[in-house]
Amino acid sequence: MLAGGLGGSRCVEALARAAGPESVTAIGNVGDDLELWGLHISPDLDTILYTLAGLLDEERGWGVRDETYQAMAVAEQAGREAWFTLGDRDVGLHLQRTRLLKKGEPLSTVTGKLAESLGVRVRLLPATDDRLRTKILTQEGELDFQEWFVRRRHADRVDGVRFEGAESARPAAGVLEAIAAADFVVIAPSNPFVSIQPILAVAAIEKALAGKRVAAISPLVGGRAFRGPLAEMMASLGHEPGARGVRALYGDLVSTFVLDREDEALAGEIPGAVVCDTVMVAAERRAEVGRGLLEAMQ
Amino acid sequence: MLAGGLGGSRCVEALARAAGPESVTAIGNVGDDLELWGLHISPDLDTILYTLAGLLDEERGWGVRDETYQAMAVAEQAGREAWFTLGDRDVGLHLQRTRLLKKGEPLSTVTGKLAESLGVRVRLLPATDDRLRTKILTQEGELDFQEWFVRRRHADRVDGVRFEGAESARPAAGVLEAIAAADFVVIAPSNPFVSIQPILAVAAIEKALAGKRVAAISPLVGGRAFRGPLAEMMASLGHEPGARGVRALYGDLVSTFVLDREDEALAGEIPGAVVCDTVMVAAERRAEVGRGLLEAMQ
Repeated sequence: MLAGGLGGSRCVEALARAAGPESVTAIGNVGDDLELWGLHISPDLDTILYTLAGLLDEERGWGVRDETYQAMAVAEQAGREAWFTLGDRDVGLHLQRTRLLKKGEPLSTVTGKLAESLGVRVRLLPATDDRLRTKILTQEGELDFQEWFVRRRHADRVDGVRFEGAESARPAAGVLEAIAAADFVVIAPSNPFVSIQPILAVAAIEKALAGKRVAAISPLVGGRAFRGPLAEMMASLGHEPGARGVRALYGDLVSTFVLDREDEALAGEIPGAVVCDTVMVAAERRAEVGRGLLEAMQ
Repeated sequence: MLAGGLGGSRCVEALARAAGPESVTAIGNVGDDLELWGLHISPDLDTILYTLAGLLDEERGWGVRDETYQAMAVAEQAGREAWFTLGDRDVGLHLQRTRLLKKGEPLSTVTGKLAESLGVRVRLLPATDDRLRTKILTQEGELDFQEWFVRRRHADRVDGVRFEGAESARPAAGVLEAIAAADFVVIAPSNPFVSIQPILAVAAIEKALAGKRVAAISPLVGGRAFRGPLAEMMASLGHEPGARGVRALYGDLVSTFVLDREDEALAGEIPGAVVCDTVMVAAERRAEVGRGLLEAMQ
């Protein structure tokens, strides 16, 4: 699976419950990684880890349930800007990630260790071990992803998206092998522009997918995203709104396109469309939705 | 004042309460600083800050009261060695310190900012902004200070103490000026070997003290330290045990030597001895003890 943040993490969990965690390799977006307080933070990888470990604050959609915020309170008091919320457990995870990266271990190895420590059995790989950063073009100029998304609450209209470092980024260790060995590849119902395209921007990954059976799950249901600014981005970036526009975005890369039952009426006009329940917001529904997805995609 | 850890912090508080915080400059030991998890930790400076801010866990003698340990729990689960306890509020302070040091600010400037953020009005300066590290010679070889003190619970007999980097360490910004401007200098009742000597090991500081009136307060009362291995170190390093041995250690540097009432009988044989209450363990007694100390030393 190629997966971004919240939608991606829920889909990884759904398929892991349906197929068994050892059958799933998730390739995660690192375009929204950031350095803060000297810590290396990988928000999308963390959301997947926390979701699979049963730790995610599902209500909020990020971070750990029942978290404390003592470290941030002190650092904020001592003058740090506190626009990006880090809980104490977050900080522990980031400290360990940062320490291992500084020792020279690649992000993929580090992510494997963090996953193991959390008891996560899905294999989670960053798209790349190299530095790749999503930049958002707005009327205010080009913003770092998290500056746009968190600090400015994605209020600025998106006029373009760029992936800094993508030209020279190589797939992380294990990514091409996982794609080669996969029965099929799933593109999670994540934001295509800022969750999936930063993965595909690693040229060798997109090339490896060309020979595979690829199914994408629509992140828009009834024209709306469950969370986040995707619907607005479709419009501002000049794409047809709704599931049909997302399907067109993926083009030849995708042979199967999964629509939610709510969008069943669109199936006739969408190449490769299949229809099933795709709503995975409630954790207790994920196993069942995962089984339906597996069946629809196979 | 020259001050080390717990005893030093209590004495700084006592004198600050007696003389007013703006009248006191504390020059703190940095020989037991360490890097851990990529964080720069200054345990002695922190103990002084926490004590003056009313945050210290007085029972334990280090760290913050009512602390949480979420970050460490996660990092430990992820494989970090956890022999040095860091609370979440500690981590927040260290993150901010580390971030400012990485920006190139000297430790003295950073310490001033941290003190301000905690509402501490005593001026706290590290002895040096340069790297100076206390090493402990034992039968097991030379150990880093914290390895000996915390990790191995100072169980190894101390055969020698060395201050790595002392030859080239310069006084931190403001230290020589503070000494020059002081009415008199107080050596806190801290461990001379590992709290005071690493300050004096900065040659320009020891030299600046030569022209000043210096009073030392005995860290041994009735031959015992309130906490820590000083009595054992006096013996293993070949010094006479008790207050008289500490007085001899400081030699000509010190003109006044403050004994606790319990040691009044020693006063006749100790050059420059004065006697007063010196026990500052209970926070509510510190103002009064501070007034007595001020009077005795002046």
